[in-house]
Amino acid sequence: MTKKVGLFGFGRTGSVVAKEIINEEDMNLQWVVRKSNKNEGEYASHLLGYEHDEGKIFSSENADFNHFFDDNWVDVIIDFSNSSSVYEYKNAATRGIRIVSAVTDYSQDDLERLMELSNETAVLYSPNITLGINFLIEACKLLKRIAPNADIEIVEEHFKEKENVSGTALRIAEDLDLDKEKNINSIRVGGIVGSHEVIFGLPNQTIRIKHESLNRAAFGQGAIFATKWVINKDKGFYRMEEAIASQWSKIND
Amino acid sequence: MTKKVGLFGFGRTGSVVAKEIINEEDMNLQWVVRKSNKNEGEYASHLLGYEHDEGKIFSSENADFNHFFDDNWVDVIIDFSNSSSVYEYKNAATRGIRIVSAVTDYSQDDLERLMELSNETAVLYSPNITLGINFLIEACKLLKRIAPNADIEIVEEHFKEKENVSGTALRIAEDLDLDKEKNINSIRVGGIVGSHEVIFGLPNQTIRIKHESLNRAAFGQGAIFATKWVINKDKGFYRMEEAIASQWSKIND
Amino acid sequence: MTKKVGLFGFGRTGSVVAKEIINEEDMNLQWVVRKSNKNEGEYASHLLGYEHDEGKIFSSENADFNHFFDDNWVDVIIDFSNSSSVYEYKNAATRGIRIVSAVTDYSQDDLERLMELSNETAVLYSPNITLGINFLIEACKLLKRIAPNADIEIVEEHFKEKENVSGTALRIAEDLDLDKEKNINSIRVGGIVGSHEVIFGLPNQTIRIKHESLNRAAFGQGAIFATKWVINKDKGFYRMEEAIASQWSKIND
Amino acid sequence: MTKKVGLFGFGRTGSVVAKEIINEEDMNLQWVVRKSNKNEGEYASHLLGYEHDEGKIFSSENADFNHFFDDNWVDVIIDFSNSSSVYEYKNAATRGIRIVSAVTDYSQDDLERLMELSNETAVLYSPNITLGINFLIEACKLLKRIAPNADIEIVEEHFKEKENVSGTALRIAEDLDLDKEKNINSIRVGGIVGSHEVIFGLPNQTIRIKHESLNRAAFGQGAIFATKWVINKDKGFYRMEEAIASQWSKIND
Repeated sequence: MTKKVGLFGFGRTGSVVAKEIINEEDMNLQWVVRKSNKNEGEYASHLLGYEHDEGKIFSSENADFNHFFDDNWVDVIIDFSNSSSVYEYKNAATRGIRIVSAVTDYSQDDLERLMELSNETAVLYSPNITLGINFLIEACKLLKRIAPNADIEIVEEHFKEKENVSGTALRIAEDLDLDKEKNINSIRVGGIVGSHEVIFGLPNQTIRIKHESLNRAAFGQGAIFATKWVINKDKGFYRMEEAIASQWSKIND
Repeated sequence: MTKKVGLFGFGRTGSVVAKEIINEEDMNLQWVVRKSNKNEGEYASHLLGYEHDEGKIFSSENADFNHFFDDNWVDVIIDFSNSSSVYEYKNAATRGIRIVSAVTDYSQDDLERLMELSNETAVLYSPNITLGINFLIEACKLLKRIAPNADIEIVEEHFKEKENVSGTALRIAEDLDLDKEKNINSIRVGGIVGSHEVIFGLPNQTIRIKHESLNRAAFGQGAIFATKWVINKDKGFYRMEEAIASQWSKIND
Repeated sequence: MTKKVGLFGFGRTGSVVAKEIINEEDMNLQWVVRKSNKNEGEYASHLLGYEHDEGKIFSSENADFNHFFDDNWVDVIIDFSNSSSVYEYKNAATRGIRIVSAVTDYSQDDLERLMELSNETAVLYSPNITLGINFLIEACKLLKRIAPNADIEIVEEHFKEKENVSGTALRIAEDLDLDKEKNINSIRVGGIVGSHEVIFGLPNQTIRIKHESLNRAAFGQGAIFATKWVINKDKGFYRMEEAIASQWSKIND
Repeated sequence: MTKKVGLFGFGRTGSVVAKEIINEEDMNLQWVVRKSNKNEGEYASHLLGYEHDEGKIFSSENADFNHFFDDNWVDVIIDFSNSSSVYEYKNAATRGIRIVSAVTDYSQDDLERLMELSNETAVLYSPNITLGINFLIEACKLLKRIAPNADIEIVEEHFKEKENVSGTALRIAEDLDLDKEKNINSIRVGGIVGSHEVIFGLPNQTIRIKHESLNRAAFGQGAIFATKWVINKDKGFYRMEEAIASQWSKIND
């Protein structure tokens, strides 16, 4: 059965995710909420080169979020916008709408707000929602267990304009108990979409696990994978690892 | 308690492994059996720059293997020589001496002979006995499960003189159901010690897992790890994966 | 002064090149010739998301190339289509229109036809028209001179669907006197846009020069660079190396 | 004609360089000066596994450098020790003995002292004396000229114990006008011998030039190359670039 999806965010990544959702057979992009009022009332589908109507654009400046979700019910909200949106879809949670958030700049307060929503509905949060990165993290945890004395460093590469250390690198550092100041090396050059490499050094051998994003559609694919999984979940707070756990559990059979 | 170790093979890799065993606190290198009669009767320790006596050198040309193991009992034989040695230490197996073989050029017949010995003692066989390669293989199996549609290719790099595709690459290809002719790419240049990279390609992301050997001591470390594990095992045929399994099982706790 | 540009080809790469030309301040995309009659009479600019009219689309099925260039004069033709177009713009050469061809599938006959046009106008031909690849080739030639005994191998990676060895890899092999069968390793996985690595192996060190294409706009940038250079040239047959030679000659000052 | 060589330094790198000099057909290792008095009076050749006498070991604690070079004349001194040695071989320079220094920790004062010696003899100084690194630097200068807008970053990887940023990375940063604080990324893990990668990022393509040292013998080979070149030079101060310049000048012929 076709699932109804609402999308927050229509920037560089958001618009690519919109396209992936439109392309997905079992999903329908009901609407898009963006910050500015540019293209308000038009359809995302047209702006992305399609001829049919899909994904009507709303501006968060003008929307009344007390009633918005009554008139625009969806199965899942996918959020690729920024930290402020979590305050706008609280009324969605009470209506049982699932939430998949890939926002990368939450403060501690924002994150707690998102967690509160999980008392009402199923919320999945992953700041880097690709299958590949989540595999990388699990594989690194495993290797650290086998080779506890290995020295570990992270190298992340992104386009020149990207400010700050990548949220994904911080997450990897956290999961591997590394020093975020010392063990993350950030390269900012040209137009590199995004790569994360974790290097394990032993006296006589080196092991490298590297993930390269080719384009932002990887986020769309990850979000769709997460959406299909979270749609059948009870209320609660979930991470991407759990979404892929059903695959993992079968590995050592 | 210090364990007594006998080593078959004293070539390029074997001599480095000898050094690692000598350096290992809990182990004593009782003897080394080599093919030629070069340095027969001398001590491996001296040839490796140590001043004490450790690892007396015997030649398989002159040794009488019907009685050798009575006079030269050890806890474990580590074999870094070639396929013929398996016929020489059959009398060791009946005396309960454990066997760790890292021989890379067994024929099917030789391998069956090695397996027969496992009816008498604990035998661990791994043609690439480094921790890193065995991790790489397990991680690749895992990723293939999560991303069954990924295209997979292997790139292996070794020094110019190395003939044939690496045994490790063939093993990886087998474990991942790849085509050994098409999916293995062999680079032979200069003095590269050895590297194996497995590339997983998805439409929007690429994942690479790479193992680089810095020097042959990695094999010694792997053999020591395997030896410590196999020493407490009942008779049977084991692979390196099982030696590291106790680490793995704890990962998803 | 704004230069008038005509483009042959509006496929996967051609349409990206069209966008780069439209974005370039000193150039105007006068028209696009494509094989099919899809969108005939419309403007490339609209199909690429712009609102102004630029790059009227013609179909080579319906165009009369005896008169086409009288009515549609340009300073330069850029060709990202296929080998057949060289027969369509012969009347352009006699009118002094410069030609930049990045076609990758010329037969020997086609290539000779292109060379003949250089008796009438300036023709620049480069099957991989990025700055980076042309730098890579020159740097490799240099290194081969310094280290004549180095072993050399090429690894090229592209998306799964790409058939045959890449033309660029063949070109590199030719320039470095390598064996095209043995020394080129082709990886075909997922959605990799395109990378070429040349590995120089010496007994104690390895040197790698690697070029990664992030997206097809790199071809547009290279074509624009070549166009600006060829526009001031007399008739003759030129390669990309020469277009960047003015930079090179200053290096050892 | 066989050239006589004296070596300062017999540590981790120095002893490998000694071996390369002993192996070199046209050179004879006359003596080795080391800081400690360990093995004083013995021959480096024996410690390195040879049976003949070559490279008698002196300690700088006990040597009298006012007369040392009269009794122990050589054609060239190769220095792989540390910054203090430059004060010990000043009397060598006045005797016309050439000097090749690969010392990495000179202060500004030390370096000036080395330069003064070039008023008396030919002095070649290179803190990373491999052919590969010197090629890398020249190739990077070239690329920067062709693509002046590229963003440039350096990644250097070394074994865990190595303190400070590598001298080679600092040198590359200087030659490319980079910010030594911001643009160098230092990885310290396990037993990596040493690698330097320079990444050039453009909006649509990335170019990487990477040098990997496989073992310290690369330094010996570079020093031998430099020695053969400097031996025919008049007094003056030279860099490795010049030693390989004769190769370079022929490239654009």
